[in-house]
Amino acid sequence: MASYTLKPLRVVRSIQQIRHYSAPLDNAIPASKQKYVPTSGTYPKGFLVSGTHVGVKPTNTRFPDLALITSETPCSGAAVFTKNKFQAAPVTVSREMLQQRNGKGVRAIVINSGCANAVTGKGGLEDAESMARTVDACFADPEAPASDTPAISSTIVMSTGVIGQRLPIQKILSQIPTAHSSLASAHSGWLTAARAICTTDTFPKLLSRSFTLPSSPHTTYHLAGMTKGAGMIHPNMATLLGILCTDAPIPPSTLSPLLTHAVSHSFNAISIDGDTSTNDTVAILANGAAGGPEIASSTSPDGLAMQETLTKFAQDLAHLVVRDGEGATKFVHIHVVNALSVAAARAIASSVATSPLVKTALYGRDANWGRILCAVGYTPGVEAGVIVPEKTSVSLVPVDGSEELKLLVEGEPEAVDEERAAGILESEDLVIRVDLGGGETGRGREEASWWTCDFSHEYVT
Amino acid sequence: MASYTLKPLRVVRSIQQIRHYSAPLDNAIPASKQKYVPTSGTYPKGFLVSGTHVGVKPTNTRFPDLALITSETPCSGAAVFTKNKFQAAPVTVSREMLQQRNGKGVRAIVINSGCANAVTGKGGLEDAESMARTVDACFADPEAPASDTPAISSTIVMSTGVIGQRLPIQKILSQIPTAHSSLASAHSGWLTAARAICTTDTFPKLLSRSFTLPSSPHTTYHLAGMTKGAGMIHPNMATLLGILCTDAPIPPSTLSPLLTHAVSHSFNAISIDGDTSTNDTVAILANGAAGGPEIASSTSPDGLAMQETLTKFAQDLAHLVVRDGEGATKFVHIHVVNALSVAAARAIASSVATSPLVKTALYGRDANWGRILCAVGYTPGVEAGVIVPEKTSVSLVPVDGSEELKLLVEGEPEAVDEERAAGILESEDLVIRVDLGGGETGRGREEASWWTCDFSHEYVT
Repeated sequence: MASYTLKPLRVVRSIQQIRHYSAPLDNAIPASKQKYVPTSGTYPKGFLVSGTHVGVKPTNTRFPDLALITSETPCSGAAVFTKNKFQAAPVTVSREMLQQRNGKGVRAIVINSGCANAVTGKGGLEDAESMARTVDACFADPEAPASDTPAISSTIVMSTGVIGQRLPIQKILSQIPTAHSSLASAHSGWLTAARAICTTDTFPKLLSRSFTLPSSPHTTYHLAGMTKGAGMIHPNMATLLGILCTDAPIPPSTLSPLLTHAVSHSFNAISIDGDTSTNDTVAILANGAAGGPEIASSTSPDGLAMQETLTKFAQDLAHLVVRDGEGATKFVHIHVVNALSVAAARAIASSVATSPLVKTALYGRDANWGRILCAVGYTPGVEAGVIVPEKTSVSLVPVDGSEELKLLVEGEPEAVDEERAAGILESEDLVIRVDLGGGETGRGREEASWWTCDFSHEYVT
Repeated sequence: MASYTLKPLRVVRSIQQIRHYSAPLDNAIPASKQKYVPTSGTYPKGFLVSGTHVGVKPTNTRFPDLALITSETPCSGAAVFTKNKFQAAPVTVSREMLQQRNGKGVRAIVINSGCANAVTGKGGLEDAESMARTVDACFADPEAPASDTPAISSTIVMSTGVIGQRLPIQKILSQIPTAHSSLASAHSGWLTAARAICTTDTFPKLLSRSFTLPSSPHTTYHLAGMTKGAGMIHPNMATLLGILCTDAPIPPSTLSPLLTHAVSHSFNAISIDGDTSTNDTVAILANGAAGGPEIASSTSPDGLAMQETLTKFAQDLAHLVVRDGEGATKFVHIHVVNALSVAAARAIASSVATSPLVKTALYGRDANWGRILCAVGYTPGVEAGVIVPEKTSVSLVPVDGSEELKLLVEGEPEAVDEERAAGILESEDLVIRVDLGGGETGRGREEASWWTCDFSHEYVT
């Protein structure tokens, strides 16, 4: 069992979100977010996890801030890292490790919150390396001679928190054996680990799911994942971490493209490309503990099914980050359809999703399609012919299945039923649909989705 | 005299800014902004201006919302328009007029606030055209036969306000003769005109200046300008209008490149390229009423002097827009130096200036160089070798002339005197200096400036 027990929770009944910047999450989850915290789960076989209190920030005297995710057997690993020019030490160390191993023989992921170990120079790299090595040592045969230490670590390292400060590395290293001895497979362990990676998040973000694959319909596979974000405006601007685990048998050569595809349509569709912090990392481990035939290719029937499952799962996880966006009171899906290219659809969806004018309008429950149109119109880098004012339509789509509310139809403003608009904008979930009408040729059929939250007062507090 | 008298003003003594969205400015200017409203001015010869109440928005029963800027003689005109794919009717009409005239023989600029005449179809174009024609008619000889009506209008039209609604065109047209009969050259007329173009602005933005040119040191020339903005985050996202008038003799062939250069270093350095509303327009009229030799080229000694004067003047005007940014409590100059290219320096300055993380840190008076660095690092489209972490330095530069406060020196965090940092962050004006150290080759010496404001609570209200 984990050394830290999550329940009972103190529920904050006010809509006001309480945040402790760059400090571990308090033992309080806003009432409005309670529904996103699972009370049980079905977890992948052969994974053991824990969340442990270290006190990376001296002010944190009791909450878990070190997560350890391990596989009982060496497994495949892959990761997608930040594109920021300033990369934190754990990013550099983990990237090199995965390259050297070609994604094979990974055993663990260790994550600390409270300090990002970013812009910390050579000492920071040594700290990240020593975290990995200390986890490795927990798996080593204590009887084996020191010369048996493998040349390459088998542990992925992540850090999140304040930039520019060195880790209290001795404190962290001294608690890694405790983290190892606390490893467990139960739901409470997963939830404690998910909580340990939080910084300004108001709730731990954990999901699990079971699925089957076409070639082995009687084998049940599992996926579990945790994430943290709670970013400003573009969620990726605060550190975004994601950890995915599955007991499906996926070799590194398949795992890497599957993860890239999934992240591109999930974690990278809640922010603009390249708009990432120094530490952003999404990693996946696949240990094959559930058995069945190896997924040899991402384009085989099993591979395609796995891709769909993984992408949907990653989306659901990424959506939790949006729901916990600083100041978020709404979850908004920007859906751009009938575009001449996927790239253009993505760029336009991103432009609308990140427009502060749109976001404040949503918070203000203002069906101002002018702001949406304006954000469509200034999307940078869109080729000629993609956006044709006389072909552009904008609708609000309620999530209750009722009819869409047309705001603009082929460039002409609609007489909007303001009451209905206000009703749709009242709800927590909402879709804004931008139909480009096929562009200049009329033949565009590409689409893209982006997810965002509104902007509220709390954001600047 | 103008039909509307600005003074006495009701001064709001609280720091709280009162805004009336998409409505003309109330007769109240926040105490903190009073200092930006001139009480006198020195205006270019041969220009007459007025501000008139129309009531474009029915709720506006008394404030001026129609500005008329005229030259006593036909003059040179140039304008820079929005790059948004959705262009408002007045933008289309004014652009075509200037093209057809090659910038010659312009007589007036007419501007209404309260309604943007954007996304209004063919009827909107007719409305914009009729505004121009009605102004033209005021200058026509009443005895001349109707067949003498010139084929091309001589009036630039601008509109700002709500998108997607038709102008109350009859109301506007009926007040244009009043606006014409109210034309005056006094300061109060200019200030009333500056107020008439305001929407969510908290104060009218008007500047005037006299200058000389190298070839005629005894001739005094004048520049006057007004602007409106009060945008969200990037000021250009709300409609930005700028009107510049000078009595220097500048032919259209010189005026156009001078304006483009000035706007690029002023109004386009307070937002990201292309990030513009449907109506953004900056126009200039030059009537030569002060005499002296024509500025035949923008690269002649007179042309270069004019360029410097005009650019500095446009910067000062644009800065007023930043100071009135919705929620702004600080004026921040982002200065990127020692870059390998001007384009990269601009992109990085823009990335830092528009980073919500940086803006909220400034409001919170948090010397968080990590956020600045993060924004530098995710600047999109920067070539390899421009940003080298180990060569990057970040400083806070106080505007009182005291020494800069180094936050990061060549990639290494400095031990920051938190008290001094807090002191610098207390002041309204601030420079953030990002030194790229010459990039990979060490030889980069290019620089760029961007101006921004902080983000405060008021922004989302």
